[in-house]
Amino acid sequence: MSGNTDELMEPGGKVRLFIAGDLAAGVSPRLDDDQTHYLLHVMRAKAGDRISLFNGRDGEWLAKVVETSKRSLALVCEKQTGFQREVPDLWLAFAPIKKTPADYLVQKATELGVRVLQPTMTRRTIVGRVNVERMRANAIEAAEQSGRMTVPECRGPLTLEKVIAAWPQNRVLIFCDEAGDAPMLIDALLDMPENAPAGLLIGPEGGFDPAERDIIRALPQAVPVVLGHRILRADTAALAALAIWQSVWGDWR
Amino acid sequence: MSGNTDELMEPGGKVRLFIAGDLAAGVSPRLDDDQTHYLLHVMRAKAGDRISLFNGRDGEWLAKVVETSKRSLALVCEKQTGFQREVPDLWLAFAPIKKTPADYLVQKATELGVRVLQPTMTRRTIVGRVNVERMRANAIEAAEQSGRMTVPECRGPLTLEKVIAAWPQNRVLIFCDEAGDAPMLIDALLDMPENAPAGLLIGPEGGFDPAERDIIRALPQAVPVVLGHRILRADTAALAALAIWQSVWGDWR
Repeated sequence: MSGNTDELMEPGGKVRLFIAGDLAAGVSPRLDDDQTHYLLHVMRAKAGDRISLFNGRDGEWLAKVVETSKRSLALVCEKQTGFQREVPDLWLAFAPIKKTPADYLVQKATELGVRVLQPTMTRRTIVGRVNVERMRANAIEAAEQSGRMTVPECRGPLTLEKVIAAWPQNRVLIFCDEAGDAPMLIDALLDMPENAPAGLLIGPEGGFDPAERDIIRALPQAVPVVLGHRILRADTAALAALAIWQSVWGDWR
Repeated sequence: MSGNTDELMEPGGKVRLFIAGDLAAGVSPRLDDDQTHYLLHVMRAKAGDRISLFNGRDGEWLAKVVETSKRSLALVCEKQTGFQREVPDLWLAFAPIKKTPADYLVQKATELGVRVLQPTMTRRTIVGRVNVERMRANAIEAAEQSGRMTVPECRGPLTLEKVIAAWPQNRVLIFCDEAGDAPMLIDALLDMPENAPAGLLIGPEGGFDPAERDIIRALPQAVPVVLGHRILRADTAALAALAIWQSVWGDWR
């Protein structure tokens, strides 16, 4: 965020923070230490400034700074400025990638309105560790900036086999299959029933191995698709697929 | 790229490099110093290894390493392995963004098959400098990895006014208008004539200012669109729009 505090702290409440506690008229929401530091020492908040808050349950609220000291800041909720709403029912299961592209993927997937992020370990996955706390921090920041009323659920990593075994019966599994004679994603989407809960599954850089493809394709809910003939990095494929899904079945329409 | 040189240097030619010179059977293509260093000291190329080459004109060729020394490496073109082809006629005009997201944008836009990258200075553009050489280096690397036969043209920055004034009469200008009552991108695309040359225009983080929106909207070729109701960062909007365009009018079908 840039330094023009006047503009950012205006009544419009351009600073927008996700908090854990309840939001309702007259409530004094509590911020965590990082948020307090950010408001006091980065944004230089002073009594009378207003910020926006959301918690994933109570919509968006405008809160007024009523008092500041060196280390603390008191807020009071004034009025609701946005209704609570959920993003469309779209999950993203993805093979973990390196730190910087992973940060980027979580940020972009959050902006693009994904509901659940499921790191999925595959045989060709090179990255062995998934930092779920870091995923969640990135998802919160992106949710704050994108105007979402919810933060995507950041799940712990599971093996592909477990993800497939636990896949809900009524949820389409859209599977980006590089080795494929599969239809284009947009064409497959246009053939699907309306309002079907869905999940995208994106493999690692080297693709799924043949045994994994068999496991995925054996799932009745699986729909293999392709995304053109150029080779896309895993994160590019994920973002492209999310954008196309939102365009056809999401809340972009 | 990972370290398994055996696999990467196999006859399939998994190392893929863009070069300036001509490619034809029997020709000895010359690599630049960085490419020579990469092959000799990172990939540990030895006589008999094969790599893939393209130059944006002659398709893709398999070249054999015939001799190596400490500082040089001799290649000979063996056979053509891919026909020359152009990506669809899609430009991306974008307000410059910070270094890391800009690198990412150029990489992803190249993978998504953009033909021209046009940095476009707007009133709310915060980033004052555009490093066209860096853009081109990122575009080359992404073209190599994505299997493209061409590198996108990386143009020098122009003001929005100049971009609009020089916009070709027959090229649709798809303009992501945040302040809009505009149709969804996918719906606008479905209404367009087939095979229309197109360009996407993506504004800076703060959006276009009202005077700029007037200038753009006054262009007869301009088609304002929206990408849902969440706030997308400029690079997210660009990638989402490119993916959707490729799905509807590009060569993904």
